[in-house]
Amino acid sequence: MQIYANGQFLSAEMPCIHPSDRGFRYGDGVFETVRLKGGKPYQWLFHLERLEAGLKALRITLNTDLLKPTCIELIRRNHAGDGLLRIAVSRGPGGRGYLPGRESEPTLVIETLTAPPRPAAPLTLWLSAYEKISPNALPVQVKLAQGLNSTLARLEAEAKGCDDALLLNAAGEICEMSGANIMWLARGKLFTPALACGVLNGSTRSALIRLSPWPVHEGAYTLDDLKDAEAVIACNVALGAVPIAVLAPQGFTWNSVALAQQLQDVLRIDMTHDTQSAA
Amino acid sequence: MQIYANGQFLSAEMPCIHPSDRGFRYGDGVFETVRLKGGKPYQWLFHLERLEAGLKALRITLNTDLLKPTCIELIRRNHAGDGLLRIAVSRGPGGRGYLPGRESEPTLVIETLTAPPRPAAPLTLWLSAYEKISPNALPVQVKLAQGLNSTLARLEAEAKGCDDALLLNAAGEICEMSGANIMWLARGKLFTPALACGVLNGSTRSALIRLSPWPVHEGAYTLDDLKDAEAVIACNVALGAVPIAVLAPQGFTWNSVALAQQLQDVLRIDMTHDTQSAA
Repeated sequence: MQIYANGQFLSAEMPCIHPSDRGFRYGDGVFETVRLKGGKPYQWLFHLERLEAGLKALRITLNTDLLKPTCIELIRRNHAGDGLLRIAVSRGPGGRGYLPGRESEPTLVIETLTAPPRPAAPLTLWLSAYEKISPNALPVQVKLAQGLNSTLARLEAEAKGCDDALLLNAAGEICEMSGANIMWLARGKLFTPALACGVLNGSTRSALIRLSPWPVHEGAYTLDDLKDAEAVIACNVALGAVPIAVLAPQGFTWNSVALAQQLQDVLRIDMTHDTQSAA
Repeated sequence: MQIYANGQFLSAEMPCIHPSDRGFRYGDGVFETVRLKGGKPYQWLFHLERLEAGLKALRITLNTDLLKPTCIELIRRNHAGDGLLRIAVSRGPGGRGYLPGRESEPTLVIETLTAPPRPAAPLTLWLSAYEKISPNALPVQVKLAQGLNSTLARLEAEAKGCDDALLLNAAGEICEMSGANIMWLARGKLFTPALACGVLNGSTRSALIRLSPWPVHEGAYTLDDLKDAEAVIACNVALGAVPIAVLAPQGFTWNSVALAQQLQDVLRIDMTHDTQSAA
């Protein structure tokens, strides 16, 4: 297995990041995780645009002209078929303190990874004691290399015996899980928190909004809305749409398997079209 | 120059971090920056306790028994006299996704660095458009490897022609600068935001609370309080106490040089005592 790091294809086992890299020092960077089907990236343009939006928000300058051919070459070298592609950009090495040095050159790391298995059973969620980071503090719509809020919520959920966490914002509005957006069906409509609530502009969220068989409502919702849902799913790039069975400690329960299967089916068809039509 | 990384003393030029390290992927770690005087660490116990509090908050297990002798050995090898010691701990390499793998072993990196020069003139601050990350979202009292909020505020201040940023919390209360606590003198008392406002438990803040020639009040304050201040200082481990002249765009101005000098003097005396009495 190889990875691509700053102009070179290297063994994936080799340490290639300098300890002064601002990615390691401060999580000062962004990343994308892209689904591969038959060695081709799904929703490439979405990921490229979100990466570029993240770089702009962080004021990191990176020429992305050669990004796609470099990814394709890594996929070829690793014989990566239906896994994941991970693209990380940090502000690069140099300096101490929060003000970046002018001489910093960004670090670009590209990896291919196996996709995690789909969960054997519908997910159980724990309502996190951690509040989601406010969009007034960080540009949370892009995938920031600031994963500690998600990590702490995930560890807390695990300690409570649950599969994942559900996080609310400071206003008590539903945001998202530790690494997935949330959607639910109620009264013939599909609901999901609006980006303004402070949620990631997820690639699978975006695809499902485009592909949904039901009208989609994006808004600010509370646990009362979720309580009344008929079925609830989590969606992310690694798993697609997966059913949610329980929110603890509230004791909300749903039968979500059919909804998740239906949405997974529309994703699978879209992925086939998208990757077959890709250049 | 050498660094210490996971059991080895290495050239400081060598990349020693694996790209799957959760420090690089997610900023999933904590760090300490310690002042050295004559090759001895100032406020060692404070830094050790804050590091351990951070590791506990992040649920990272690291045996710190050998940390001090390892630091002392690195200081000796690098002939580090009056600079800085930086200790970083991440959750270590392995896995994708926010839930850490059970096999993760923490990464420990220790570096010696030169101290930055004291600013030639009193600092100018820009009132940041970025809100401080809430203590409900992250354990912000310890030094998290999540520096993007500070970095973005610092870049914004630089773009406005200011030396640093002042950040408020979601309630509009004064928090801190991008990498320093703030204190001000008014009516014969020294004021500083309370930790509950969401500020770092800074080592120099702590020393000044202990050493202040005036009674110290920790509380929740707004810009109106700051406007009425007689003198305002920033304090951190790298610079000690430095004067603040201006808050823009409010146009608040202060004559802070004498206050900063007085507090810098008490810090210097304490540093001499503390490092001379160290084992």
